[in-house]
Parts: sequence; C-alpha cells; structure tokens
Amino acid sequence: MRFPLSKSLQRNSLHGMSTQTFRIGILGASGYTGADLVRILSTHPNIEISLLVAGRSAGRPLGDVFPHLGHLGLPDLIGLDEVEWPALDLDLVFCALPHATTQEVVKGLLHATGHSLLDEMLIERREDLVSAVRRDIKIVDLSADFRLEDPDSYETWYGRAHQAPEFQSAAVYGLTEFNRDAVRGAALVACPGCYPTAALLALLPIVEAQAIDASDIIIDAKSGVTGGGRSLKESMLFCEVAEAMHPYGIGHHRHMPEMEQELAKRAGQEVGLSFTPHLVPMNRGELETIYVRLAKGQSADDLRDILADRYAKEPFVRVLDPGVAPATRHVRGSNLCVLNVFEDRIPGRAIIVAAIDNLVKGSSGQAVQNMNLMLGLPETTGLMQAPLFP
Amino acid sequence: MRFPLSKSLQRNSLHGMSTQTFRIGILGASGYTGADLVRILSTHPNIEISLLVAGRSAGRPLGDVFPHLGHLGLPDLIGLDEVEWPALDLDLVFCALPHATTQEVVKGLLHATGHSLLDEMLIERREDLVSAVRRDIKIVDLSADFRLEDPDSYETWYGRAHQAPEFQSAAVYGLTEFNRDAVRGAALVACPGCYPTAALLALLPIVEAQAIDASDIIIDAKSGVTGGGRSLKESMLFCEVAEAMHPYGIGHHRHMPEMEQELAKRAGQEVGLSFTPHLVPMNRGELETIYVRLAKGQSADDLRDILADRYAKEPFVRVLDPGVAPATRHVRGSNLCVLNVFEDRIPGRAIIVAAIDNLVKGSSGQAVQNMNLMLGLPETTGLMQAPLFP
Amino acid sequence: MRFPLSKSLQRNSLHGMSTQTFRIGILGASGYTGADLVRILSTHPNIEISLLVAGRSAGRPLGDVFPHLGHLGLPDLIGLDEVEWPALDLDLVFCALPHATTQEVVKGLLHATGHSLLDEMLIERREDLVSAVRRDIKIVDLSADFRLEDPDSYETWYGRAHQAPEFQSAAVYGLTEFNRDAVRGAALVACPGCYPTAALLALLPIVEAQAIDASDIIIDAKSGVTGGGRSLKESMLFCEVAEAMHPYGIGHHRHMPEMEQELAKRAGQEVGLSFTPHLVPMNRGELETIYVRLAKGQSADDLRDILADRYAKEPFVRVLDPGVAPATRHVRGSNLCVLNVFEDRIPGRAIIVAAIDNLVKGSSGQAVQNMNLMLGLPETTGLMQAPLFP
Amino acid sequence: MRFPLSKSLQRNSLHGMSTQTFRIGILGASGYTGADLVRILSTHPNIEISLLVAGRSAGRPLGDVFPHLGHLGLPDLIGLDEVEWPALDLDLVFCALPHATTQEVVKGLLHATGHSLLDEMLIERREDLVSAVRRDIKIVDLSADFRLEDPDSYETWYGRAHQAPEFQSAAVYGLTEFNRDAVRGAALVACPGCYPTAALLALLPIVEAQAIDASDIIIDAKSGVTGGGRSLKESMLFCEVAEAMHPYGIGHHRHMPEMEQELAKRAGQEVGLSFTPHLVPMNRGELETIYVRLAKGQSADDLRDILADRYAKEPFVRVLDPGVAPATRHVRGSNLCVLNVFEDRIPGRAIIVAAIDNLVKGSSGQAVQNMNLMLGLPETTGLMQAPLFP
Repeated sequence: MRFPLSKSLQRNSLHGMSTQTFRIGILGASGYTGADLVRILSTHPNIEISLLVAGRSAGRPLGDVFPHLGHLGLPDLIGLDEVEWPALDLDLVFCALPHATTQEVVKGLLHATGHSLLDEMLIERREDLVSAVRRDIKIVDLSADFRLEDPDSYETWYGRAHQAPEFQSAAVYGLTEFNRDAVRGAALVACPGCYPTAALLALLPIVEAQAIDASDIIIDAKSGVTGGGRSLKESMLFCEVAEAMHPYGIGHHRHMPEMEQELAKRAGQEVGLSFTPHLVPMNRGELETIYVRLAKGQSADDLRDILADRYAKEPFVRVLDPGVAPATRHVRGSNLCVLNVFEDRIPGRAIIVAAIDNLVKGSSGQAVQNMNLMLGLPETTGLMQAPLFP
Repeated sequence: MRFPLSKSLQRNSLHGMSTQTFRIGILGASGYTGADLVRILSTHPNIEISLLVAGRSAGRPLGDVFPHLGHLGLPDLIGLDEVEWPALDLDLVFCALPHATTQEVVKGLLHATGHSLLDEMLIERREDLVSAVRRDIKIVDLSADFRLEDPDSYETWYGRAHQAPEFQSAAVYGLTEFNRDAVRGAALVACPGCYPTAALLALLPIVEAQAIDASDIIIDAKSGVTGGGRSLKESMLFCEVAEAMHPYGIGHHRHMPEMEQELAKRAGQEVGLSFTPHLVPMNRGELETIYVRLAKGQSADDLRDILADRYAKEPFVRVLDPGVAPATRHVRGSNLCVLNVFEDRIPGRAIIVAAIDNLVKGSSGQAVQNMNLMLGLPETTGLMQAPLFP
Repeated sequence: MRFPLSKSLQRNSLHGMSTQTFRIGILGASGYTGADLVRILSTHPNIEISLLVAGRSAGRPLGDVFPHLGHLGLPDLIGLDEVEWPALDLDLVFCALPHATTQEVVKGLLHATGHSLLDEMLIERREDLVSAVRRDIKIVDLSADFRLEDPDSYETWYGRAHQAPEFQSAAVYGLTEFNRDAVRGAALVACPGCYPTAALLALLPIVEAQAIDASDIIIDAKSGVTGGGRSLKESMLFCEVAEAMHPYGIGHHRHMPEMEQELAKRAGQEVGLSFTPHLVPMNRGELETIYVRLAKGQSADDLRDILADRYAKEPFVRVLDPGVAPATRHVRGSNLCVLNVFEDRIPGRAIIVAAIDNLVKGSSGQAVQNMNLMLGLPETTGLMQAPLFP
Repeated sequence: MRFPLSKSLQRNSLHGMSTQTFRIGILGASGYTGADLVRILSTHPNIEISLLVAGRSAGRPLGDVFPHLGHLGLPDLIGLDEVEWPALDLDLVFCALPHATTQEVVKGLLHATGHSLLDEMLIERREDLVSAVRRDIKIVDLSADFRLEDPDSYETWYGRAHQAPEFQSAAVYGLTEFNRDAVRGAALVACPGCYPTAALLALLPIVEAQAIDASDIIIDAKSGVTGGGRSLKESMLFCEVAEAMHPYGIGHHRHMPEMEQELAKRAGQEVGLSFTPHLVPMNRGELETIYVRLAKGQSADDLRDILADRYAKEPFVRVLDPGVAPATRHVRGSNLCVLNVFEDRIPGRAIIVAAIDNLVKGSSGQAVQNMNLMLGLPETTGLMQAPLFP
C-alpha cells in the first residue's frame, strides 16, 4: 500500500502533537480573511483565540458579524484602542486589516508591547510595558504593507509614503515554501498577496533554473469575489457579479510589483511581467494561466519536472499528472496549491496553470502555516482539511 | 469569559482523545456523499480508510474521480465483487449507494462476513467466514433502504418489494440526537434523508410536547443541487439550474413517509404532512420553512423555548436568538443545524425555520456522528470544523 | 396547425401597428427597474425616451452607469431639479424611485406641469405652466407609494405619514389583468410590487370564486437578488448571497398589506395571510408556493380550472398542463407569469405555484403593459420577447 | 442631441420594414443554440418558423423540451426522416446540429430539395424534386462542419474524413462583418464558432494592418457553460461547474485551426496562435483576453484606433472608451460584441479584450444576422434587443 506524504504528516501532527497552547489575536476580525483565520484556528489544537479586534463592528459579538462562527464561544469584537496588551499577553497577532492602515497599527503595537525589535532599531520603548509583557509578540501581517522592500516602490504603487519604513526591513516575506527558515525566526512576517502566492509557486523554481525568458511572462489571473473583501462597493453586489465576467485593473494591479520583486531576486535577467486579473462569479478560488517563453533547449515537460522535483516533499503544493488541468474546485477551502505545465501551440512557448483558494493558501491558510513555524509547531498543524467539493 | 460548549467538547476530543484506529470502508465512493465521507474522515484521528468501492469507476484511483481527494493517498476504487472481506477485517462500512441497491448489498455483506446478526435471524452463515472475520462488521447506511419500518410502506413509495426485509427490523433510525443509545449498540444504522433530518430536528420536540396541531404541518423545503447526487440527468446540468428555481416532486417526494413515520411515533394524534421541495442554484445547503398551527395556549415563543431547552446541550444543534433567520451559509460544510421560530401573521400559526448542509448533517456528517457512537468514540470526533463562509 | 394566441397578438401589433411616437421620461434611471424599463422600451416602436433622471448619478451618461445600454444613444442622466418640464412636453413618466421619495416627486411633478388632476382636487396650479404644457402628463409609478388606499395602513407599514395623500385616491392599482379599464383612463397608475403581482395573479380568481378559505393563505416566496435593488448593503454583496439561501422579513414584509388589500376586495370573508420571502442566489426570478385550504367540495383540479378559464385569453398569464411545475427559468426576461395547481397530501389542501421575472412582469414589464393601455396602444406592444433561457 | 447609429438602424428596420414573410426550419431544435434561434426569431417580423427537427425529442411539442418557448404555438418537433421538404417549401434552414453530423445532413438536404448547387457541382439530382420545390433552399450552418476550407485540416482536427467535401468550397464563412457580400449571395453559410467570432472581430483589422506580430498571439478565453451544449456530461453538471473555474482543451481545442485559417488570409506573415479556453460558472458570455506583440512603432492606442475606425459604422461591434473593460454582462442576450485595447506592462506588448454572448453573437444571433442578408432583409432586423442586465 502507498504511504502518502500527507497522511504521515497528519498522523505526526496528531499523535506526536504538542499540547502547548498559544494565545493569539486577530486584528481585522470582521473581514473575510479574519473570518477564515477564525475558521481554521477553531480546530487548531494549540491555539486559543484571545482577542478579536474590529473597527465599525467593535462592541458586537462575533456571531453577530459572522453568524457561522457564533457557536465557537469566542471573545466579542473590540476596538483597537480598547486592547490591553500587557494583560492579554499574546504570543502572536494576525493583522488582517486593509492596506495602508496596517503599517501604523503594527508600529503602535510594537511600541505598546515594548517589543525588543525596537532595541535593534534603536527606538525607545516604554519601560513600564517592557516589564509587563513576558515576551515579544509575533506579528503575521496579511496586508500589502510590509511586502515591498523598497519604500519608493511602495509610494509609487500605493500613492503615499510608507508610515513605518523602519520596520519594513525587519519583515520577512512569508511565501512559506521559499522562506521557511527566515519565517521561523521572524518577528514580523508579511504574507504574500493571493495572486503573487499562486504566481510565485508556479514560477520561482522555473525562473531560478533559468528555464524561461523572464522578460516575457504573461499572467492571466481569475479570482473569486472574496478577493475583493467585504467592503461595500457597487461592483461587488451580487447582481453585478453573478452570471458575468470581466477583467479589472489591467496593467496597474498592485500585486504586480510584489511579483516582480520576488521574481527578480531569483532570475538571472530583467523581469518583464504582464498581469491581468479577472473577476469570476464564485466566492473562493484563484486560477492563474501563465504564458511563458521557454529558454533554449527547454520543453514544457522540463518545466513540469522542475516543479515536480521542487515540490516533491511539500505538503501543500501538488504538481498534477501530465495533461490534468488544475481547477479551483479541487482546492476549495484547503491550503493546497495545484500546478501543471502544458505545451503551447506556439513553438517555444509553454503554459503553466496554478490553482489555489485565495482565502486559504492565498491568505489565511498561508498565514497559519507561517504562524506554525513562528511558534515552533509542525507546519501542517490545523491545515490538513481536505477541500470542500462540491 | 464564556466557556462555550463546543470548545470544551473539542478540547476533550483532542486532548483526552483515543489513539485507537478503526478500519472502515466506503461502498459508493464515487458519489458526492461518498466524497464527503472521505473529506470528513481524512482528518478523523481514529479512522483509517481501507476500502473504497465504486461501480462504473472501479479500477480507477480516487484522485481520478475526485481530484480534490487525490493527495490523500487512499486505496484505489474497486468493484464490490473484488472485495476480500476477511482479509480487510473492517470495523465498519458506510453504504453510500443509490436507493434500492443497498438492501441487496447489505444482505450480501452480512453473509460474506458471517455476521452474528444472521444467528439472531436464524439465518445460515458460511463457517469458513465465521472463523476468518475477527468481529462483526458494523454498517452505516446512507440510503433510504432501511429507513422505513413498514415493508408495505416501502413497496408503496419505492414501487417494488424490499429485498432484505429480514434486516429491516434490525436497523436503527440514525437521527443521532434522538436515538443515541440505540445507535451505540446497533449493527446496522439507517441514516435519515437530508430533508427528514432538518424537519425532524425542527419538529420532533414540538410534536412530542403536543404544542402544535400535528395534522396540519406544511414543509416548504429548498435544497442545493448536491441533494440530487452525481448522476447524469439533464435537469442537473449547470445551465438548467443556474440563475433559476423551481419546485419538484410536489405531493409525492419519497422523504415524506419517513418524516411521517418518525413524527407519528411521537405525536399524540394523526400526522398530516405537506412537503414541497425546491431546487436552488447552490451546491450545498438545505433550508426548511415549516408552517404550523399552534395548539391552544401555545405561542411561537413557546415553541422556541421547547427547542432551546431540548438542544441546550447538543453540540450540533443551535437555536438562534429571537428574530435571527437561519441561513444555509451559516452551516455550509459543517455538521451544524440551526433553528428558529417566528410568529406568523395568521393568528394561531407559527413558522419554524431550519438550515443544514444537506451533505454533512443531512448525510455524511451525521453518518460519521453515528459511526463515532458505534465505535465507542466521542460523538464529535472529527466533526468540529467550522462552516466555510463565504 | 395551431394558431397561437401570442403569435396573432404579435402580428397584430407589428403589422397593424401604430406609427405614433410618444415621448416618455424615467425618474430613477440608475436603478435596476429603471434599466429594465430602458431595455424594454429601446425596441418599443412607439416610444422615444426623452428624459432620464437620477440622483447621485446626475450628469453622467447612461452608458457610464449601465454600460449595457451605452450604445442606445439616449440622453444623459440629469437631476430632478434640472428638468424643464414644459420644454420636454412628455406624454408619460415612469417613477422608478425608492419608496417614500416618490410621493413628493409625484406631487411636485403634477404641480410643475400644471396637471388637470389639480383642478379635480381643487388644488391651485401655476398658470404659466398650464399654457406651456400641451397635455396632461401620465404617471406610472413603480414604487409602493400609491399602492395602499388607506393612508393609515401606509403609515403603519412605512413608519411615517404619507406626504401626498390627496393623490392616493386618484391612483389606479396597476395589476393590468384585473384593472384594465381603470388603467386605460388613469392619470396615475401604481404598479403592484413584485411579490403581490405573482400572488394576486395566482389567488384573485380563486378567492373571487370563494374556492378556498381566505383566512388561511400561506405564501412561501423566493426571489432573485434584483428584488433588493442596486443599493449598497452588505447583505447584497455577492459573497453573502452566492451559494446560500435564507428567509428575511418574516412576518413583517411590506408587501403584505398590499396583498391583503387586493384580496380582501374580492373575498367574501376576512383575509388571513402569511407571507415569508426568501433570497435566492440568482439575479432575476420570483417563485411563490402558496398553500391554501380548499372550500368545501373544491379540489386542486377545480382551482386549476378556475385559473385556466380566467386567463385563457390573457397574453401574459399561462396556466401549465397538469403536473408541470412552474420554474423561474421559463419566464426569465419576459413579461410572462406561469401558474399551476397541485394536490396537497394533507386532505382539503392544495398548492398553487406561480413564477414571474420580478423585474419584468413584477415591475418594469407590467409598467410598460400599463403604459401601453394609458397611451391607447395595443397592450402587448414591445413586450413579446420570449424568455432568455439559459 | 446625439443621433445614435443603432437607433436610426432600428427605426429603419421598423418603419420602412418589409412585410414579406419567409418560411424557415431549424434542424437541431432541442439544443441551446436551436432554442436561442427560436427565441430571436419569435419576434422577427418577417419569419415564420415552419419546421423544427430534433433527434431523440422527435414527436414531442417544443414546450415539452423548452417550456420557456411553449407559449409560442410553434410546430411540434419531428424527426429528420419525417420532413416533407417539397410540401414545406422553406426559404432557409438553420442547422444547429452537433459537429460531424451536419455534413451528411446538408448533403441529404441538398439532394432532397434538388438544389441547383448540385448542377454547379455536376451532381445528379432527382427530377421529381426539382419540379416540386419552388426555389433553392438556403442553409445557415452553426456547426463546425463547413468552416475549414482544407479537408485535410478537417480530418486532422476532427479525426475522420469529411463526408461532404464537395460542398465545402461552396460554403461562405459567416463572420458577417467581414464577408457581407459573399454571405448575401451564398447558398450555404458556415457560421464561425463562438471563440473565433470574438477573436477574429478583435484581431482581423489589426492583423490586416500588420500592426502586431501575427506569429505570437496568445488568446486566453473564458466561456459560460452553454458553450458546451445541452449534452449529458458529468463535467457539465451544476455541482461540477458552480463555484469553480478551470481551463480545458489546452493546446488542442478545435476552434484553433478556424482562427488560424481566417487570420492567415489577412496577415502578411505566418500565424502563431495559442488558445486556452476556460469554463466559467455562468450560463452565457464569452470573454477573450488577447496578448499581442506590437509591430514596430505601434502602440495600444494605435490598435484601438484601428478597431474604432473599422467598426465605426457596424451596428453590433462597439469599441469602448479608453480604459473601460469589456464585460460579458454588458452584452448578455444581445448580438453585441464589445472591444477594447490596453497597454501592457511588458514594453512592446498590448492587451485586447473582447466580450460577446456566446449563444447570440457567438452563434444564433450571428446566424440570424446572416439569414437577414441572405433573404435580402435589413441586417439588423429582429436583432436590436438590448442586453439583459442584471
């Protein structure tokens, strides 16, 4: 009988599993990524959710804002100003806040808890807090605020100066499969955007192997509607989205510089990237169809082999059998990424296809994966749920 | 701080949890309920899936038929005739087969394993098998074949005589919340249909309390499309269902006699039931809006209190706060049932609303809940996943 | 060969059709009912759309707000204050405005155009306008503001006093099939709500024939999301609605008094009505499953015959063959209403099912049907488009 | 006031419209394209639908197979063998049959009606028929059978020899905007596939102008589910498609050679085409995102100008304002194609986006557009319905 990787990983995490409990908080618990963090963590054996922070919904029970989580008996939502950091004594905080607001929140949080990162930065911290908080709080940020290493690039793409550039260098880019060691020791992890997660898992090993022309990469991306968050926009109304499809942000989507940054690190040449996202009438799921020009002597099968080798031991990344098309329904609700490579009819080209659940591997699941590493837990703990299909 | 029921239940099942492993099989693994059994059991700490049986798909890997389960490393699908029961030495088998075929399969299975139930029935069994199989196999049936106690009623509604009436009396009706003790000791459990599950959870305590007129119960039910299974019917094509809604089987749906049978057992009067199901363009979810006539002196609030009292300690049934409408999105992918009662504008009437995921609490989840009891495991083991929303 | 009613009606309206052109305006052109008015009228041979009024969107081209109508070359949206009524010299105005705002708009409109209705009401009108406007403008109101005849009932259900009660008595309830003559001569027609349209078409002939107990009518209604309009509400976001279903407004939906008012006029007894709407993940479509208690000696077949007789010559209402279930997909995008009656399993009960497109027969289509009568055109002009399926 | 093209076209076709009536037949009336032909033609002022042919559904009323068309009073479906061609005396026949079966049907049809095309081909025809049929029947084929001019190419892509190669050269490729004159005089028109329709409208003028590198054209296409027809396939079940997305036929979709054939005719160089279709959970709609490499000196704006010039007077093709993304919801149910061009972030590249309704402009609508020309009617007759949104 076959002995699958995932089953043994699961048995490990169950039978030899740590009984230690960590206390975590979620800032931005009234959004979809916040809700999915709660969903995933609610069956995580080592986590106690001790803090749920929200803006407009502060003061309301979680079950009021997300009735599907009402039975979990979690703390009520409170405002950020009401948090008593020392008393809570958290091990880790997830920031699932809108872009641009996170940077100030993180700065405030580090000061409020007298984080030792301030020492390294030669930033003064409050002595009363230093004694009160037992240990340094760890931060997993799901926003875009700490993903771009270059503050100028941030300003270009987000239209304003970064408010906490001093911590930008301390942030580790949380594409777990490629930054495992750095994530383990990090105080602040910036989780990749959903689009970059799928794109980088599909492209990094191939770019690293110089198997394609990195100056001519075309990414045609399709995303479910949760990618747009829970904010009130006409374009997100059911009747605008259902039974319909369209591209958006053509040529200027903010996930582009993030992909370019990470690809450029590994490519031996200049990176040229075209990225066109589309909105699909489904809640979850992200599909990227990536058109690449092969380096001399390379074939689609070669690319497939590169990916298969690279991910052979990865619990969450699967390269499918030749000819099998990745589909979002095969990863829905799970932390999986499925990949495959296909021959193109244009000679010298190949097509790479990647599918993830944008809310899980593309956001909250990957955040928990990073959390596990940061807390010294087995990486797969709490993340082995099979996809929900149909 | 509140100490929620579910969290303590979960901690129990995790920390004090049994390390025993049981071997189970799934007959009918290529259908949606079979797939959802695999999904749920894949993270169950005490279960090893040792057998997957399918008809047309026999010989194919599970990942071929359900790519979302391909990474789990489970056995290939095989035909029923190929199963070597003694060698497998299973503890329990799920029958997720089409209606009408199950009865013969169960009969054959009991004979093939030399089940001691045959002794009780004074039915001859094969001596060679008796020695080979260590213990009696337990059976959890998800079909309709053993739900109706009266063979005549079966024949009336299903249009042919029952093929294994001798085992019908041995079957326990697996509405767990109402038959816990019987399920624990049962050799054969007949899980309720999805519609009856929601209807009975909503109505049984109220009928038992004689708080409504049991001769005038109107159930308007709405179901997601998985309720129709994975079979090839024009009416199940995407383009026939999407962006549309309609009732079906008006006045003659086969779930009716099952509801009447169970309600009649507890009502002090004749039961009159109207049941109209509707097909809704969604994969999962079942909503029942039940219109009842109050018994003298009863109010909608009284009904709500009856339900709240009855389910106060149940891990999977929640009565919502007054005024909050149950919604299928609040239970999607989970084993939860949510209930509420509303005043009607017609004096003397009330409206009860119930929501479940038809594939989980309405089928595979409830089946696992019963399995846990039959195997002596904590009832909630493997079933505490929070709903997947959005 | 059969000679179908609809084909002959269509030929009439095409071949013997009037070449007169009427000028109309739409107030509230940025909502879904406004857009559907434009869609329907864009191929109406006798209509010129001369005015499009919107609130927040004033000043924008229609194609900006509704790109699917951008190719029609219609006037830009303007604010209500900017309208020069005399210069426009309109024949008819549609009010597709939110409830509660319409009453004041209509009042202002009548004054602004010096409508002769003011004379009848002994209300002073501006002499300068009287001379400027060639003829009395006709008004088709799609809001709820003029549907309830009793101002007290309005105040009870809408929470504030009516602002134009003097015109309430002048309004004709625009359920075309039942008020044809009154509509023809009306200055102001109040189109029924979408739910009442389906319910009244299903029930009025039956109640009139005293074939059911009018004190025990249960309406379980299911609506597509356009029923909620284009306003920004969290509950209307794609991710809240898709792959889900729930009831809302249980026991207190504002369409109830309207149904009761119209039913009471025709019933020989007190009306008792229960109405529970549900939100369905589809754009268009409304289905009502109506549970009724038969009067002595009546059967489901009798009810069906009553409906079939009543609607035999109606171009837009079809009673289906026995056993065929009405479905929203069979009327999508059309002005049709399909009906059928089924036997109930509870003796003495029957089930009536009605399906319409809530935006067409339930709103804009019925409004155009009324317009045709008010302008002396054949009733079916511009309304014979077949449903869009799939 | 602006005087829009479409409005004037519509007025023309309405006011100066022909009163002549033509008799048409539809072979393959039980599929989705057949149904959409009926829908469109049901309000066409010059058409009488005199024949509806179906395979398995022969003998049933149309309303049985498509209840939404049941009120139109059309003839019952009959088998192909039962058709009495001379008695019917049709002007034109639509073939909406599955690929590969059409070629033999067309051959048989030409013989059965003693078509004069046989003379040209020096093929013997039956004398009795020649006298019986007043005039040559015209054929509009919606299948792929007569699209490929090269019989070898047909055999390569469809896996078998063409059964009526003698008529292949007589067929005119029915991309109306580019073959108007040829269509007008054609006996047999082969309508383009849905994917080629959008792609060719987007690319032909640009390729003709040699404004891009025709050897590197990447088409990422997304289609609604009606594109797959009404046949019973597991992959078309609601639960397999809803809430999901995936590519299919990567590198070997049969629409590719058709695109290449038409592009090659107009390009001054060899054509290299990559085409990857995706299945989207919606009924109707097709979006193509086309990635092209600009010829020297060309910009995205230049491409846009080329398209805007080319289609300035076309009633059904619209080039949107700069920056506005085409969306399928803006063409749903209509014969429109919307186009736009965007700058790419990769220097020297541009992105063209096209949206159509695959069943209308991509199939039945374009077929009627061709029919109008073949019958000498104004091209837009019966096709001016505005899109159905939402």
